[in-house]
Amino acid sequence: MKFLFVNGVNMAALGKREKSVYGEKTLEEINGELVRFFGEKGCECSFFTSDIEGELCRAVRESDADAIVLNAGAYSHYSVALRDAISSTEVPVVEVHISNIFAREEFRRTSVIAPVCKGVVAGLGTQVYRLAALSFLI
Amino acid sequence: MKFLFVNGVNMAALGKREKSVYGEKTLEEINGELVRFFGEKGCECSFFTSDIEGELCRAVRESDADAIVLNAGAYSHYSVALRDAISSTEVPVVEVHISNIFAREEFRRTSVIAPVCKGVVAGLGTQVYRLAALSFLI
Amino acid sequence: MKFLFVNGVNMAALGKREKSVYGEKTLEEINGELVRFFGEKGCECSFFTSDIEGELCRAVRESDADAIVLNAGAYSHYSVALRDAISSTEVPVVEVHISNIFAREEFRRTSVIAPVCKGVVAGLGTQVYRLAALSFLI
Amino acid sequence: MKFLFVNGVNMAALGKREKSVYGEKTLEEINGELVRFFGEKGCECSFFTSDIEGELCRAVRESDADAIVLNAGAYSHYSVALRDAISSTEVPVVEVHISNIFAREEFRRTSVIAPVCKGVVAGLGTQVYRLAALSFLI
Amino acid sequence: MKFLFVNGVNMAALGKREKSVYGEKTLEEINGELVRFFGEKGCECSFFTSDIEGELCRAVRESDADAIVLNAGAYSHYSVALRDAISSTEVPVVEVHISNIFAREEFRRTSVIAPVCKGVVAGLGTQVYRLAALSFLI
Amino acid sequence: MKFLFVNGVNMAALGKREKSVYGEKTLEEINGELVRFFGEKGCECSFFTSDIEGELCRAVRESDADAIVLNAGAYSHYSVALRDAISSTEVPVVEVHISNIFAREEFRRTSVIAPVCKGVVAGLGTQVYRLAALSFLI
Amino acid sequence: MKFLFVNGVNMAALGKREKSVYGEKTLEEINGELVRFFGEKGCECSFFTSDIEGELCRAVRESDADAIVLNAGAYSHYSVALRDAISSTEVPVVEVHISNIFAREEFRRTSVIAPVCKGVVAGLGTQVYRLAALSFLI
Amino acid sequence: MKFLFVNGVNMAALGKREKSVYGEKTLEEINGELVRFFGEKGCECSFFTSDIEGELCRAVRESDADAIVLNAGAYSHYSVALRDAISSTEVPVVEVHISNIFAREEFRRTSVIAPVCKGVVAGLGTQVYRLAALSFLI
Amino acid sequence: MKFLFVNGVNMAALGKREKSVYGEKTLEEINGELVRFFGEKGCECSFFTSDIEGELCRAVRESDADAIVLNAGAYSHYSVALRDAISSTEVPVVEVHISNIFAREEFRRTSVIAPVCKGVVAGLGTQVYRLAALSFLI
Amino acid sequence: MKFLFVNGVNMAALGKREKSVYGEKTLEEINGELVRFFGEKGCECSFFTSDIEGELCRAVRESDADAIVLNAGAYSHYSVALRDAISSTEVPVVEVHISNIFAREEFRRTSVIAPVCKGVVAGLGTQVYRLAALSFLI
Amino acid sequence: MKFLFVNGVNMAALGKREKSVYGEKTLEEINGELVRFFGEKGCECSFFTSDIEGELCRAVRESDADAIVLNAGAYSHYSVALRDAISSTEVPVVEVHISNIFAREEFRRTSVIAPVCKGVVAGLGTQVYRLAALSFLI
Amino acid sequence: MKFLFVNGVNMAALGKREKSVYGEKTLEEINGELVRFFGEKGCECSFFTSDIEGELCRAVRESDADAIVLNAGAYSHYSVALRDAISSTEVPVVEVHISNIFAREEFRRTSVIAPVCKGVVAGLGTQVYRLAALSFLI
Repeated sequence: MKFLFVNGVNMAALGKREKSVYGEKTLEEINGELVRFFGEKGCECSFFTSDIEGELCRAVRESDADAIVLNAGAYSHYSVALRDAISSTEVPVVEVHISNIFAREEFRRTSVIAPVCKGVVAGLGTQVYRLAALSFLI
Repeated sequence: MKFLFVNGVNMAALGKREKSVYGEKTLEEINGELVRFFGEKGCECSFFTSDIEGELCRAVRESDADAIVLNAGAYSHYSVALRDAISSTEVPVVEVHISNIFAREEFRRTSVIAPVCKGVVAGLGTQVYRLAALSFLI
Repeated sequence: MKFLFVNGVNMAALGKREKSVYGEKTLEEINGELVRFFGEKGCECSFFTSDIEGELCRAVRESDADAIVLNAGAYSHYSVALRDAISSTEVPVVEVHISNIFAREEFRRTSVIAPVCKGVVAGLGTQVYRLAALSFLI
Repeated sequence: MKFLFVNGVNMAALGKREKSVYGEKTLEEINGELVRFFGEKGCECSFFTSDIEGELCRAVRESDADAIVLNAGAYSHYSVALRDAISSTEVPVVEVHISNIFAREEFRRTSVIAPVCKGVVAGLGTQVYRLAALSFLI
Repeated sequence: MKFLFVNGVNMAALGKREKSVYGEKTLEEINGELVRFFGEKGCECSFFTSDIEGELCRAVRESDADAIVLNAGAYSHYSVALRDAISSTEVPVVEVHISNIFAREEFRRTSVIAPVCKGVVAGLGTQVYRLAALSFLI
Repeated sequence: MKFLFVNGVNMAALGKREKSVYGEKTLEEINGELVRFFGEKGCECSFFTSDIEGELCRAVRESDADAIVLNAGAYSHYSVALRDAISSTEVPVVEVHISNIFAREEFRRTSVIAPVCKGVVAGLGTQVYRLAALSFLI
Repeated sequence: MKFLFVNGVNMAALGKREKSVYGEKTLEEINGELVRFFGEKGCECSFFTSDIEGELCRAVRESDADAIVLNAGAYSHYSVALRDAISSTEVPVVEVHISNIFAREEFRRTSVIAPVCKGVVAGLGTQVYRLAALSFLI
Repeated sequence: MKFLFVNGVNMAALGKREKSVYGEKTLEEINGELVRFFGEKGCECSFFTSDIEGELCRAVRESDADAIVLNAGAYSHYSVALRDAISSTEVPVVEVHISNIFAREEFRRTSVIAPVCKGVVAGLGTQVYRLAALSFLI
Repeated sequence: MKFLFVNGVNMAALGKREKSVYGEKTLEEINGELVRFFGEKGCECSFFTSDIEGELCRAVRESDADAIVLNAGAYSHYSVALRDAISSTEVPVVEVHISNIFAREEFRRTSVIAPVCKGVVAGLGTQVYRLAALSFLI
Repeated sequence: MKFLFVNGVNMAALGKREKSVYGEKTLEEINGELVRFFGEKGCECSFFTSDIEGELCRAVRESDADAIVLNAGAYSHYSVALRDAISSTEVPVVEVHISNIFAREEFRRTSVIAPVCKGVVAGLGTQVYRLAALSFLI
Repeated sequence: MKFLFVNGVNMAALGKREKSVYGEKTLEEINGELVRFFGEKGCECSFFTSDIEGELCRAVRESDADAIVLNAGAYSHYSVALRDAISSTEVPVVEVHISNIFAREEFRRTSVIAPVCKGVVAGLGTQVYRLAALSFLI
Repeated sequence: MKFLFVNGVNMAALGKREKSVYGEKTLEEINGELVRFFGEKGCECSFFTSDIEGELCRAVRESDADAIVLNAGAYSHYSVALRDAISSTEVPVVEVHISNIFAREEFRRTSVIAPVCKGVVAGLGTQVYRLAALSFLI
């Protein structure tokens, strides 16, 4: 099975800024762990990270993975463009958030992409990537 | 580690009604699988199922488990009472939903309990119970 | 034909309190009249009355009647749980209200269960039970 | 007893268009049945049908029937004029809808005339006319 | 000076229905008084009364009076059509209401035609017609 | 008959500022005209003008006039205090506005005092004072 | 191909009033041009114009054209009746507006008929009729 | 005088959980103090505590006390059922809250039961029970 | 202990106007009773009454009492200025209302000062002053 | 005449994904047809396609075409940036949508760019590009 | 150049209360610094401070300064009266706030006076007065 | 001290388009003046300008300046991504706008970035950059 892990805006700062909210691990470390964890299970992992909404849309739209795990960051709350990109592909997408977005500011409690995703995993720390991908295996 | 799996209103009908939405497994089958899966990992599972809001509050409030996995069903959307019960305990609670509530009617897109839960796992089928509990182990 | 007449919260006070709004007849009297009226037409009537939301859900969910006439009282306005119970059964449900809920406070003008019922009969006094059941006969 | 059955905008198309929503019977057939059904009970039935809001207002305002059964169609949702006409008469008016308006688009869930009617019968098919009128007899 | 007094939906019932709200005078009596009162001041009065929104629009649009006094009744609250008719003419229009619409139901507190009228006179009884027209003379 | 004309906040600037909106006449000139006009009809006019909300409340509350004509200026839109003062007196109050407040910014279209006034005269220029008082004479 | 061009409330004033908004051409001139333009293409054009909502509903409901081009004027913003008429016919309807309704008052930015039309052409002047009809030919 | 003190959902946890919000005293201690305090004044105190909405409704509906002091907990914010139970009894009910609900989350600032209670005492700690009952004595 | 009782806009009319709502006692009588009642308990009472929002702010801001009992009247519903004055002092403030503001007009159900007060006592008649102050003694 | 056809986010997938919604033609085919169609009429066509909001803004801002036809895709619904870009140029812009956005999800019914465009053509399939450009020629 | 610095409700407490929010400097110290700073630049400074909304309106309305720097405090959020006073003068007004009002409670994020001011300076501490005035010099 | 001046979407058009709104100076001229003005004070100025939201996020997130002055243009109103970028850095950010955004369209009155900025300077022309930076020096 091939997974694509897509990280959106400001995610490149994981583990470098606001560690009390998002944890100590950098995106590189998280991705490394995913490669090992799913490699052992015979899965292939690829990664795409961008701050730019339009590039995220293209990555989702053109992916040939079996499943996409998507942390869109702030774009989750208003990017109808990303929603349309997800709708346009048949690859199942699971939305993830490291922090519990439902326990934060009002505007973070709405995700415009959730309705077109297969599911949502939020608030369980950096392991949300792993849990989301696991849902395709167990 | 001790898990409490709490199932709320109408969950007793799982696997019997609306199978296209909620899947083929009965709550008994789901619970049996959880016992086996987490038993192998040395964890203890207990279960509480009720249609009655006040009984769910008491179960959450008085639990001495290490973690609670809660599928509150429709109460998720308006039971401030359940929210208060969750707030009053120090046991971490993860909210789960079998279907993707964000892809359904508008009123299902709001959970009044999510802000006081540790996290949310939704839309990934009956394995959401397992994934939520797994988050305490990996 | 078998009818189940379900009466929800505070309905046990019918004919005892606020008679100017809800009329002079007690629930027992109303039910007695229904038995006689539909008995003559060869129909069977059973009754379930409870103040407790979860018990009403179970009654609806597990009924094997041919049709349910449901006066959910105040739960009509917010019980998504009851709505889900109605959705989960294939027995047709008609929502009734003795008073014209549309002529009362703003919050009574919305019924969360109406969208999943077959129809609504409201504001025509205690005979709404009879009219609702009649709709299955004529 | 004298009944006036008032049918509003687009009702002339009953049984001709959108039969899956509104049923197979034409307004003529429905009215014919009402004449027979209530004739047997010694009641008189008259009918008024118009697409024009102002004409419906006048019909309601000037009627000398004992009761009016009113299917205002789409005007139910915004015609304050019709509401005022109903308020201005002492003849009791029952609002009816063939389809369950509460299960349709959001804007159909509000009736501006319901608060000044005696009651509402909705969603039970073309027999709503009969049930509404029956409420004055039983 | 030539005045046109336009009365809208249900106004034909003035003095016949709901006298406690709208007063004892019929529209004929009110109009008769206006003819006498303004006749003495050398003014000409004409009248147009209709229940039909589209006819009111045409009357406003095609009038060659020097000023229009308009009691649109319930259409005041939603007839954008009437608003457009008023906008399309250069004849100044004063909106009047016999009752104080601001002290009644919420939906009566908004007039969609007020923003395109010269002014509003409301709540001072049947003499609002006279006061509104007087504003052009003093 | 004794009239009290109350002018609220910023009204002291009438005829000095924003003449295109409020006209050329100063408050002194307007008041002078009112004294002459109603003096001829045997009426007595007194005046109270203040920028201070609490002083306007007291003036309304303690007046022994037969009728009050009140231009509350901007306080019309939010002074519940003034509303309560009007409610507490049995002297009838007519709200006036020189400009058509319904044709201006959205927030000016709501008057919190209108529901407790006898009526409203707006948008007909500085003669609104005269028309409002006239309503008690004709 | 047979086209029906329906013009609603106040459209009869085209080219006579508010020329800066709606242009210089009268409805007669516009219709004449349509006859010529589409006649050359072998199409038949018929026309229906009315200020009355109910008459517009009937015209749409009973038309046997191949396509309807509809400028409902102000009724676009609130006539659920017209919406229902459009829904009830299988003839495709294209909504047109001469001015760009999206650049005008807030309430003009919503069309209750657009969701049941095939498409919308707005803001391109009096040629919107022609463009809308052309869409069926090219 | 006979008082009934009703405590709703999660109140059984008073003095055991979230002491910084709700104080150190258990419900038993509070009730014991009330018995002593009002016993000295010759009053009788009884108590009803339940997590279940329907049971609270019945307790209120069927009480024969002279006054009810009601801490409904979270049900205050959405239980129309409880509101109806309060409306149906002639026993005066005072709503109390230990914490200042107006200083907490937005959804706690609305009480659906307050409009049918005699009054509200909130935010003054566990003595709110005593103050509310005192209001019937002084 | 030193109490300051602050009465806001229109409170000077207590016992003189609208007695059915606010009771028969004048503010002087109420204050006299408070002096006697709390004098017996060894407490000192002072009073400040004004119709003017800014003066109430200053009185609250500069008070050196041990506790303030504040009936702000209508200012409760919109005076952010008074809210800021309360926030700026460390003296605890209890908001009181003689009538049950939650059972009146919608706009009275919100108090902008409640979130910064220690608590609220409403709807229990003129003794709310006494109950509020008592909360500091028992 | 020189036309610029701008296609926004996800438009590169036209004819490849969701063909039932957006049709069978690829953007290349559509553009090719436009070149031919308008070439015959002596017009020049250029094209700009990007997934990136900021690049679309620059393209619009810096274009020297005589007219722009803009399908902004999902950005239509929230890109105030694009709106500002359109405002900043004097080149007229016509907004187009292949599908009828008014018949889709609620959030698609609002276009933030429509108010600053010359007009809108929506829902008539891939020929909307052609119709929009034609509006400058006929 | 002559500056008028106007300070509104509760500003007299600057430097005395809530120093962590508003800083350590008293209004006297701030004003002293302004005199010195702008005196060196050849400008004249005058000051007006009041808790009373109406007095602030008069000060703004009647000022003959070249520019006004206005810290209206809480009145910024609801004083339409002050807004009107600003509109009525031709002296440019700059609104200032010591704290970042946009980072505080929701209701502080709206200023009803901002739309009629020349600009806004907020959140930069007590130097906002200086920066606002400087904008007229550089 | 090192300043970073960040200019967002469409800002490259300053001084070239819509000069009546944004002034005559180009961004190059403005930046040149800032270099000279702050150079004299011993400060260093750097600049980043982009139309692309994601690039602005990165520039803010990775800056090592002592303070950032940010004119985000239209992104201010909806870019939660930019808000998160500002939150993630410890460098203080001041939001600036050349025009008074509070005096323009409703949607411009909300800035989603303001709550996480140190302050806001708006509406004082192109010198807002200078004033914002000055706030760190005086």
